Amino acid sequence: MEERLKSQLAFALEIDKVKNIFRQTHLSSHGRNENDAEHSWHMAVMAYLLREYANEEVDIAKVMLMCLLHDIVEIDAGDTYAYDEEGLKTQKAREDAAKERIFSILPEEQKVEFTALFDEFEAYETAESKFVHAIDNLQPLLLNDSNNGGDWLEHQVTAGQVYKRQGKTKLGSEKLFEITDEIIRKNIEKGNLRE
Amino acid sequence: MEERLKSQLAFALEIDKVKNIFRQTHLSSHGRNENDAEHSWHMAVMAYLLREYANEEVDIAKVMLMCLLHDIVEIDAGDTYAYDEEGLKTQKAREDAAKERIFSILPEEQKVEFTALFDEFEAYETAESKFVHAIDNLQPLLLNDSNNGGDWLEHQVTAGQVYKRQGKTKLGSEKLFEITDEIIRKNIEKGNLRE
Repeated sequence: MEERLKSQLAFALEIDKVKNIFRQTHLSSHGRNENDAEHSWHMAVMAYLLREYANEEVDIAKVMLMCLLHDIVEIDAGDTYAYDEEGLKTQKAREDAAKERIFSILPEEQKVEFTALFDEFEAYETAESKFVHAIDNLQPLLLNDSNNGGDWLEHQVTAGQVYKRQGKTKLGSEKLFEITDEIIRKNIEKGNLRE
Repeated sequence: MEERLKSQLAFALEIDKVKNIFRQTHLSSHGRNENDAEHSWHMAVMAYLLREYANEEVDIAKVMLMCLLHDIVEIDAGDTYAYDEEGLKTQKAREDAAKERIFSILPEEQKVEFTALFDEFEAYETAESKFVHAIDNLQPLLLNDSNNGGDWLEHQVTAGQVYKRQGKTKLGSEKLFEITDEIIRKNIEKGNLRE
């Protein structure tokens, strides 16, 4: 087998591990914790489904690929919960090391491409990146809302913390922020989120 | 919330259930059974990564979306193992009913679009469909090979059965069939597959 194809298949096998990285979010119907592969799959479908609500026109192939790859670094770095203040301080260093190791399995030009895509996601500047972040926020919100805010209650998350994170959704989609706001208000009223 | 967005979010929540549809394939390192969402995520990444090996030029956004959606019908129809002769006889009827129910949650034109994409996958005629099927074959082969053929041994699958299924990979990618053949021969030699 050629070296190039061998590297590509080695990468394909390596990323299987992301199916064992579990998040704080629970599946609908009060299911088990969700893992990164499932979350990324769900995001990619939602991004396609809801692309009409992006503030700016987006390259949808790039958006889907960014959804699919954005959490690969967590194979080494682990999942950092959105409201874990301590974990957030070391997140970038952990993820940078992971990015170097994991993408280095690929043929050089694919390493460069995937690294650039991950960096673009992190930089939060392009239309695609801002829309992917909006979907990254909306997907767990949808699940958590369907479970009566169980994840917020478990971690005693406040409305202020949720608005701080979810507020950035409007950079990618004003429309999706509107419904985010509607969902958050409903959960405050129901006592699922502390003011 | 507008009806259109409400339908789209209802669909997004409905498809969460595919994370609970488990396959016969096991994760690498002799892990647990894989579910449809993880399998679809893995396929979409692999399709992008290996697109250079498609026999014909493909629309990669369409390929990725087809990977992401091709197993949604299993929410109702369940997973049919590739070597389950009895299950295969009723598979189409079960999946057609599921397709109608699940895609009907969407706004009409998205229902039409997603249904057409699923039908295109099933019809096995377009370049995209043939390449997605090639990846649908290769992804579990890669995992199973990494586990020393455990899934074949468990179900006493023969080399003939594997060639019957995997042989169609060459319709989508001659190159990926070459390495498939290499992997199958290796597993016959190791006694993981009966001749």
